[in-house]
Amino acid sequence: MQPYFEKDFGNPSAIHEEGLSTRKAIENARQQVAKTVQVRPELVTFTGGGTEGNNLAIIGSIKALLIEGQDYSDLEIVTTKIEHPSVIKSIEYLATLGVQVRYVEVDKVGRIDLSSLEGLLNKKTVLVSVSYVNSEIGVIQPLRQIKKILALAEKRFSSQIYLHVDGAQAPLWLTCQADSVGADMLVLDTAKCCGPKGVGVLIRSRRTKLSPVMHGGGQEDGLRSGTENVAGIVGAGLALELATRDFKARSEKVTSLRDEVFALIETELPQAILNGPVGNSRVANNINISIPGLDTEYTTVVLNQAGFAVSTKSACSGVGGGVSTVIQAVSGDTLRSGSTLRITLGPDTKIADIKKLTQVLKKHIEKMSALTN
Amino acid sequence: MQPYFEKDFGNPSAIHEEGLSTRKAIENARQQVAKTVQVRPELVTFTGGGTEGNNLAIIGSIKALLIEGQDYSDLEIVTTKIEHPSVIKSIEYLATLGVQVRYVEVDKVGRIDLSSLEGLLNKKTVLVSVSYVNSEIGVIQPLRQIKKILALAEKRFSSQIYLHVDGAQAPLWLTCQADSVGADMLVLDTAKCCGPKGVGVLIRSRRTKLSPVMHGGGQEDGLRSGTENVAGIVGAGLALELATRDFKARSEKVTSLRDEVFALIETELPQAILNGPVGNSRVANNINISIPGLDTEYTTVVLNQAGFAVSTKSACSGVGGGVSTVIQAVSGDTLRSGSTLRITLGPDTKIADIKKLTQVLKKHIEKMSALTN
Repeated sequence: MQPYFEKDFGNPSAIHEEGLSTRKAIENARQQVAKTVQVRPELVTFTGGGTEGNNLAIIGSIKALLIEGQDYSDLEIVTTKIEHPSVIKSIEYLATLGVQVRYVEVDKVGRIDLSSLEGLLNKKTVLVSVSYVNSEIGVIQPLRQIKKILALAEKRFSSQIYLHVDGAQAPLWLTCQADSVGADMLVLDTAKCCGPKGVGVLIRSRRTKLSPVMHGGGQEDGLRSGTENVAGIVGAGLALELATRDFKARSEKVTSLRDEVFALIETELPQAILNGPVGNSRVANNINISIPGLDTEYTTVVLNQAGFAVSTKSACSGVGGGVSTVIQAVSGDTLRSGSTLRITLGPDTKIADIKKLTQVLKKHIEKMSALTN
Repeated sequence: MQPYFEKDFGNPSAIHEEGLSTRKAIENARQQVAKTVQVRPELVTFTGGGTEGNNLAIIGSIKALLIEGQDYSDLEIVTTKIEHPSVIKSIEYLATLGVQVRYVEVDKVGRIDLSSLEGLLNKKTVLVSVSYVNSEIGVIQPLRQIKKILALAEKRFSSQIYLHVDGAQAPLWLTCQADSVGADMLVLDTAKCCGPKGVGVLIRSRRTKLSPVMHGGGQEDGLRSGTENVAGIVGAGLALELATRDFKARSEKVTSLRDEVFALIETELPQAILNGPVGNSRVANNINISIPGLDTEYTTVVLNQAGFAVSTKSACSGVGGGVSTVIQAVSGDTLRSGSTLRITLGPDTKIADIKKLTQVLKKHIEKMSALTN
């Protein structure tokens, strides 16, 4: 990225050499992403991040249908109540304009209920939006099965139902090959896979028609106006390539650590409730527990002083009080959804680190418990 | 910016130390911008660039009025036909939704006709959008006089008329102090003042109500959702501070060079027509000439080979053929608007460089002329 901050400043839309050089850098990055996810480069759009990508996918696909003459009231979207705020709020915005939104049920670990999905689809359904991996509880949705259900519904209704997948949490751990994911719109955020903040990609299928949500000079084939963030895009290309290159080995290694941690928590912190699934339908790096009755916001401060950076709910849900809407949706238990701790593992996390964290946490819980009793 | 790429990766919305550190970096940058333009920090919003800022200002201010119960058909916007594509296209989008758009006349050098502006304002006018400096022909709009006319109209109609100013071209050359500019929304793009691409700021007045155009986690006080581009924001703060710090001396120096160049062009290239004004109502760094009959796209390639990076029309108007809509609007002359050359000066540009450029250009014109005749 550094050359594009230090010496290569050309506007990629300019026709002089400086412009051609940055244009080439962007197109190289696009090819890098295209090769990584195995699509044609023209199906890769660089965005200003995952949030913008989700906005573009959801609002842009609906806008394209309006341009074709449909009315908001002709259109239905199916999603879940455990999506990322950028998905939920974009869809809620469309609901205020008249789009009907239907929420598919999820089970106690956040997995989509496939028969509920099947029952919600009808001839008005134009978009189904689900995350690849839930950012709070790590559940991996059964995308292939979802895709099959949509394909059958498309036949039944002679319609087209786009599948939008928020894949922000996926690249380091799961395949992002377009055919495997099966999405009409797959949104990635490079900040979530060791790349720069403020950049993302939207990968679309050939049939996907999008209308831009940002108006202007028509960069990114008209889908995302604004002078391109050249350095960011260069970083995004490399980050996605590196993230996906060894994802299997990385995932296996960290999954094994994660399961060791689960066993440790069960022994050391019997009062902890695991949020989300165990086994293969949970992403490798995600641990999320509730300790009912514990002030986990304060707990993050205590753990922070001991050198551990943990979270409660999604950072995008804002700091401050309030329960995790995701855990509320799956559990219906306010005590549990108000006392979550999210511990994210990396390829270099050691079990010794987690043992230390567990000890600090255990002592803190005992101290808090003594103060309350 | 480098620490935020190399070691400081925390999500600024997280509550652990890594998050607090990047949050602090963002708030420092916000204060830096606030101090630079002399507003309270809470009136500074970081965006993904000038295009996004203009979209947010224009569409966001109209959306806020809709939320207050107004209808698109109650609202009128006044702008010019020489604005940047991000302004023109955002306004055209609102026009498709029912907002009435009125175009104020500009004179032959692109300066707004103040009596035309006065005549277009009415009780429905809610937004006037003009650039501080036109990106193609460098004309500086008389913002103070415009603001006075709006203030009088607000009294006459007991209404509120927002002034939106696309200030992308201003920071290195003109004051960006909020009181001097007088805008309700001032949009800056740090890539245009030696800062990183993909970052911008929107500075608003206290009375300005905006509704977001990007839906999600509610970052930037709800106005711009999405994980913040921390490094970019840090760069933006410094770029704007440095750009405005010595703008007067820089502007005087480059204005003097510019006027020398104008004299040189008049002598050496008598067939060249200057686009935009001379004197104080032209920004220091902008030179824009037409050489009717010359293929200036090809000319930029020839000049490029000689080491000069020049442009034709706005890079945001896209590469490839077509006339400059800005010069078409001010001149009504297709031959002139199809043969523009834009030469941008910097603080380090030497008159010797321009003399060499002029000689290359002169020879090229003679060669082309010989081929044609």
